[in-house]
Amino acid sequence: MITVTFLGTSGAIPSARRSMPSIALKYDELFLWDCGEGCQREMMRRGLGYGSVKAIFITHLHLDHFLGIFGLIETIRMNTQRESLLIFAPRGFSRIVEEISPSMGWNPSFLDIREMREGELYRGRDYSILGFRVQHQKRAAFGLAFIEDDKNKFNEAKAKGLGLRGRMFREIQEKGEVVVEGKKVLLSEVSRVRKGLKIVYSGDTIPLDSTAEISLGADLLIHDSTFGEDLKDEAVERGHSTAKEAAKIAKKAKAKRLALTHISGRYNAGGQLEEEAREVFADSFVAQDGMEIEVVPEGKKGTDEKGEKEKPGKSK
Amino acid sequence: MITVTFLGTSGAIPSARRSMPSIALKYDELFLWDCGEGCQREMMRRGLGYGSVKAIFITHLHLDHFLGIFGLIETIRMNTQRESLLIFAPRGFSRIVEEISPSMGWNPSFLDIREMREGELYRGRDYSILGFRVQHQKRAAFGLAFIEDDKNKFNEAKAKGLGLRGRMFREIQEKGEVVVEGKKVLLSEVSRVRKGLKIVYSGDTIPLDSTAEISLGADLLIHDSTFGEDLKDEAVERGHSTAKEAAKIAKKAKAKRLALTHISGRYNAGGQLEEEAREVFADSFVAQDGMEIEVVPEGKKGTDEKGEKEKPGKSK
Repeated sequence: MITVTFLGTSGAIPSARRSMPSIALKYDELFLWDCGEGCQREMMRRGLGYGSVKAIFITHLHLDHFLGIFGLIETIRMNTQRESLLIFAPRGFSRIVEEISPSMGWNPSFLDIREMREGELYRGRDYSILGFRVQHQKRAAFGLAFIEDDKNKFNEAKAKGLGLRGRMFREIQEKGEVVVEGKKVLLSEVSRVRKGLKIVYSGDTIPLDSTAEISLGADLLIHDSTFGEDLKDEAVERGHSTAKEAAKIAKKAKAKRLALTHISGRYNAGGQLEEEAREVFADSFVAQDGMEIEVVPEGKKGTDEKGEKEKPGKSK
Repeated sequence: MITVTFLGTSGAIPSARRSMPSIALKYDELFLWDCGEGCQREMMRRGLGYGSVKAIFITHLHLDHFLGIFGLIETIRMNTQRESLLIFAPRGFSRIVEEISPSMGWNPSFLDIREMREGELYRGRDYSILGFRVQHQKRAAFGLAFIEDDKNKFNEAKAKGLGLRGRMFREIQEKGEVVVEGKKVLLSEVSRVRKGLKIVYSGDTIPLDSTAEISLGADLLIHDSTFGEDLKDEAVERGHSTAKEAAKIAKKAKAKRLALTHISGRYNAGGQLEEEAREVFADSFVAQDGMEIEVVPEGKKGTDEKGEKEKPGKSK
């Protein structure tokens, strides 16, 4: 299970309702996707410990997506025993940090800054976090994807039925096959592949086919939805997407759910945007600050192999 | 009347309860004293329009006191017709802005940055805003004082009793005296001086006699009160004051009220700090985020000369 917490869902300007863009992903570790002003305080309000952040990913260098990282760096530096903090950000970010570090009294070695790029950025136990190109004004802009490895789910009952005993269970899983009473049994006969979970975040972008491609079959697509159809021209001009355009991407990608985010202050709670998106893609919802989405494998019913209870995506 | 709104009352680290240091002063114009992370959003939440900020004063260059200015600059730049924004900040701030301006796409001429220093920084219609030195670690650190001009309050009934008629009212107020039926009447005979309001903010500092001096007779002293007596050593080490030390300054200054701020997360709502301060200075209270204090001349009862209703300092 992956828990996605929306820490800030506003567009360029915050409102009383919405803080600046930031999304927390909790799997075995905690990751931040964008870190707008106020991020550290929103983490505290949502019960996410700043000390446990494994890495921070900044999609593009617009201030609303990264100002909060400086406050968070300062808090982690002052209040934890950590020796470094891993940050992925587009070219240019390192220079900003180098320039302000002396004024801040920061030791540059504390920050492990790596350049945001296309492809695998971070490899975890059984998942990768990838960057991919999007298009937003003239800035280098990226989206992010969390992709869990596909998993072989072993069917013990079926294996026993085919005569597997003792060490054979280990052998078939290691070698992909085992010989039972002179007959070859393939791993694929006694297991099924469970597609790994996929969560995609577009960052700020115009609608792109390439976003739909990388989002193919995503369990959750989080997409720029700054405007409604009434301000479609402004969306084009400012390099953003409308809710309906986001919904078209989700539909093309055959995503399971679509979270609309980066909501302009004009739309308040976002009812209009949700309606417009749902005309195209039914499983659309407008992200709200503090909303927590639990993403679980589709086939899970009740409990899974580890005895975990299924928790369907919930909004609170 | 001056309205003081506490936008953020935390120490170096925010909490769910307290945002980063920032105080809004509303008189004829709106001023910000410090501008910690989240300031612009707290302004929105408290109904203070960012577009009407006349000037921002940064007491010292610790990130918790100024990070929010960058988000606020960006919002004002993008969403108002303003041509410039007046900022007073210690030496070093201009350099930070110069360094990050190209990355931000900021036109340097938009920012009218002046160096924070001792003495008058800003002269308004009938008031001044002054900087004064305080002592906080190794940084150049300042406190701020809003000092309204003293005013002559004319007693019309008494003047009429002494025979003043028609143009004489104007003459005595312009020249300081007037001759009525051969007898000189002085302005001071028919008026009294109403001391101008004074509001002082210490910024981050150890307790200093000089702060008490500039705060003499202040209607409201807002003082660093990061720690309680239990952490007095830590207060010394970190260049802060305890609540009790702040209270001693208020007592020495014969201030009317003391607001304790920059509250460490250890003290939560601050009951302990309030108690410790009140042992020394009864009119002490712990500032809370969103608290709005209306500071009015002491002598005002019911309505004043302009027919304004008296609104005693209130906490909400």
